[in-house]
Amino acid sequence: MNQADALAELARLVPAEVLSTDADIVESYRHDQSRWGDAGTPLCVARPKSKDEVESVVRWAAKHRIPIVPRGAGSGLSGGASAIAGCVVLSLERMTRIVEIQRDAMYAVVEPGVLNGQLKAATKELGLWYPPDPASFEFSTLGGNVATNAGGLCCVKYGVTVDYVLGLEVVLADGSRIRTGGRTRKNVAGYDLTRLFVGSEGTLGVVTEITLRLRPAPPPAQTLVATFDSLAAAGQAVAHIVKSCDPSLLEIMDQASIRAVEAHQPMDLDTSAAAMLFARSDAPKGAEPRRIREACEAAGATTVFVTEEEWEGDMFLHARRLAFPALEKLGATLVDDVAVPVHLLTEMIRRIERVARETGARVATVGHAGDGNLHPLVLYDAKDPADEARAQKAFRTIMMEAIALGGTITGEHGVGTLKKGFLPLQLGEESLAVQRRVKETFDPLGIMNPGKVI
Amino acid sequence: MNQADALAELARLVPAEVLSTDADIVESYRHDQSRWGDAGTPLCVARPKSKDEVESVVRWAAKHRIPIVPRGAGSGLSGGASAIAGCVVLSLERMTRIVEIQRDAMYAVVEPGVLNGQLKAATKELGLWYPPDPASFEFSTLGGNVATNAGGLCCVKYGVTVDYVLGLEVVLADGSRIRTGGRTRKNVAGYDLTRLFVGSEGTLGVVTEITLRLRPAPPPAQTLVATFDSLAAAGQAVAHIVKSCDPSLLEIMDQASIRAVEAHQPMDLDTSAAAMLFARSDAPKGAEPRRIREACEAAGATTVFVTEEEWEGDMFLHARRLAFPALEKLGATLVDDVAVPVHLLTEMIRRIERVARETGARVATVGHAGDGNLHPLVLYDAKDPADEARAQKAFRTIMMEAIALGGTITGEHGVGTLKKGFLPLQLGEESLAVQRRVKETFDPLGIMNPGKVI
Repeated sequence: MNQADALAELARLVPAEVLSTDADIVESYRHDQSRWGDAGTPLCVARPKSKDEVESVVRWAAKHRIPIVPRGAGSGLSGGASAIAGCVVLSLERMTRIVEIQRDAMYAVVEPGVLNGQLKAATKELGLWYPPDPASFEFSTLGGNVATNAGGLCCVKYGVTVDYVLGLEVVLADGSRIRTGGRTRKNVAGYDLTRLFVGSEGTLGVVTEITLRLRPAPPPAQTLVATFDSLAAAGQAVAHIVKSCDPSLLEIMDQASIRAVEAHQPMDLDTSAAAMLFARSDAPKGAEPRRIREACEAAGATTVFVTEEEWEGDMFLHARRLAFPALEKLGATLVDDVAVPVHLLTEMIRRIERVARETGARVATVGHAGDGNLHPLVLYDAKDPADEARAQKAFRTIMMEAIALGGTITGEHGVGTLKKGFLPLQLGEESLAVQRRVKETFDPLGIMNPGKVI
Repeated sequence: MNQADALAELARLVPAEVLSTDADIVESYRHDQSRWGDAGTPLCVARPKSKDEVESVVRWAAKHRIPIVPRGAGSGLSGGASAIAGCVVLSLERMTRIVEIQRDAMYAVVEPGVLNGQLKAATKELGLWYPPDPASFEFSTLGGNVATNAGGLCCVKYGVTVDYVLGLEVVLADGSRIRTGGRTRKNVAGYDLTRLFVGSEGTLGVVTEITLRLRPAPPPAQTLVATFDSLAAAGQAVAHIVKSCDPSLLEIMDQASIRAVEAHQPMDLDTSAAAMLFARSDAPKGAEPRRIREACEAAGATTVFVTEEEWEGDMFLHARRLAFPALEKLGATLVDDVAVPVHLLTEMIRRIERVARETGARVATVGHAGDGNLHPLVLYDAKDPADEARAQKAFRTIMMEAIALGGTITGEHGVGTLKKGFLPLQLGEESLAVQRRVKETFDPLGIMNPGKVI
């Protein structure tokens, strides 16, 4: 059967509004937010509104051996949702129902297209909280968050997406539908397929329903901002803080980031500082903010400021949140996402700086310091091939340095296509072979987001 | 090759002290702590001291298609470590090295035979803490804790074993060795095989090294004990507490348990109470203990007692910890391990009581109330077949009730052989088929703890 006939068949299987072959629409689903990678042109885009429609699309794709690229909001940074030539992009963006919020047992059941921020808002009204807060929370979907095991700022205390996924409904590569996990916080009945699907970037199945654990609303927080005249001092403060406190946020910006933010929006930041730390404590009023302050001072902070006012704290964090947009104004950016054991944070930043010097690339680093998770942004001029080559080299070398320090090439963004070539270096061939066998077990035809991750 | 020749071959592959065929020793490795289940007689027991020796045993077993039953301390309650006729029991009890404790990044690398309590003690000396605290923590191994994804009392706030496993080294069924995960808190490089191995009860591979996340030493805690004249009232208090507080422990005992403890060791417990709750708050001194007290009072607690003294709190918790030994004095016991969403806790306890009435079995319930995880202990006279039959019926019916409430047949003890027949009822055939495919992927010869879990 040729492609036209296959498309005609799909058009008979799903309502007209689900299927789109319009060139402009198809083009708009070709890329996620990653740079590089050669996204192919999809055969079509399917935007189902129901599980049954997802099933129909998957069964059809399996029958015709057509690759499926599942997609949430397309806000991924690693190419996990970028299209493959001749694929069906299966966008879950129209499955936006919050099925249930159970107030007493504190869980929510949602469709994958619900935005992270929508669930946050809906739970907040009930005095509850869904913690994971990737920077994209206002526009990324929970399905996408599950696919990448998204992190964020609060995970230093409250964990990442996988820590909140109690159960899933998944359409497998043959179109069959299974449930994993459940609604209880503890559950050891059989293999933990839930956690296997989380972070699998759409390569093992299509998630059609998610049961998420919720928490009580977070207590009010105090915010601390500190500047340091050396990275070593900032790193030492981080080490002290994580060992003696339980901060609900602990972020770092290097000098290049501070300067970019200040240039983007003057807010009187100390552009001579080597690094800034942002910390939050939501422990009940007591010793913790003082201990964080003392840790910063003991490490040689040049200034420390603490506020109990939430609005003022938010204002400070605004500087951290501005880092990405500010840096993106300076050129094309490659967002890296390495993580190391937290005692090696300073060493990792040092190596990033060395890579920048040695390659001649411009690199600015922000990160979730408390988790040892850094986002070096490599800046380049997209019109200058030599500059782009430098950026690529820096990007690659930074990953190698993370591996050398016993770290990971991706803490929270995923492997996608961007980092696929580096996965063997981190995992080793034997471990990768097992990963491949797992993939084949779930997707013997190789149609689920092929060419991604492994 | 016959068994004698195979044994002779193994004797050449490993040092003499590793292999044992002595009938008394073999017999002592036949059972774990579970009742029922027809454990077979092992061909031999292997107690390796190194990864290489584990590899040798597994390669030998694979070559001869001899089933491997991995085993820690043999303290499991579900038959996961019970022997299979003609198997090699692969005991990891001699791999007891704490390889590394990294103070600053707060992780530990251990061999699987290290006791949970040993790691707790070693980390405590450094001002650190390994939270998971199964009741067996003094004599169960970390390898066994990983195999069953063990929980405990503190998990209502601090999570279960899987929440602490950063990485593993595993010898696969063919004798090859892989590493999963790493040493960072965030890591999304490839499929999360670490979490797939955790809780897999030795059916996917043999864990030879574990990297565990640690936390700073826990702050001092206040302890609260409350009595209730109805289960409904206690359940209501639990629901309030988990929604408004973050207790570090929240346990329940029903009347039968209270009476058994008081009979076992008189300590002036109110034997007329329908239920007792035990709660701990390790939030910095402040409002939380008061809020827990208020939640109990609002739910109609007949007495509430709070203490800041750790020794006094420990004394109260002693009553909870005595429940198992006290009940075991009354006859043979079957320890069940169901979990339900926490708003259905009271309903689950009611159903347990109804099952006891309808089957005529004696059932006493204690549990991790904050997680909705209950341990109904079914008592019976092991010499009275009719009584044992009643106990079996009650045990089975309680699992069915948990499934009916959207819960799980096992919250933290595992499936083993004891609950294997019930797994299909909870998971459904399609999901179970996927579990079987995963098993076949890792163990195509079917030699890794065959007949367990699925």
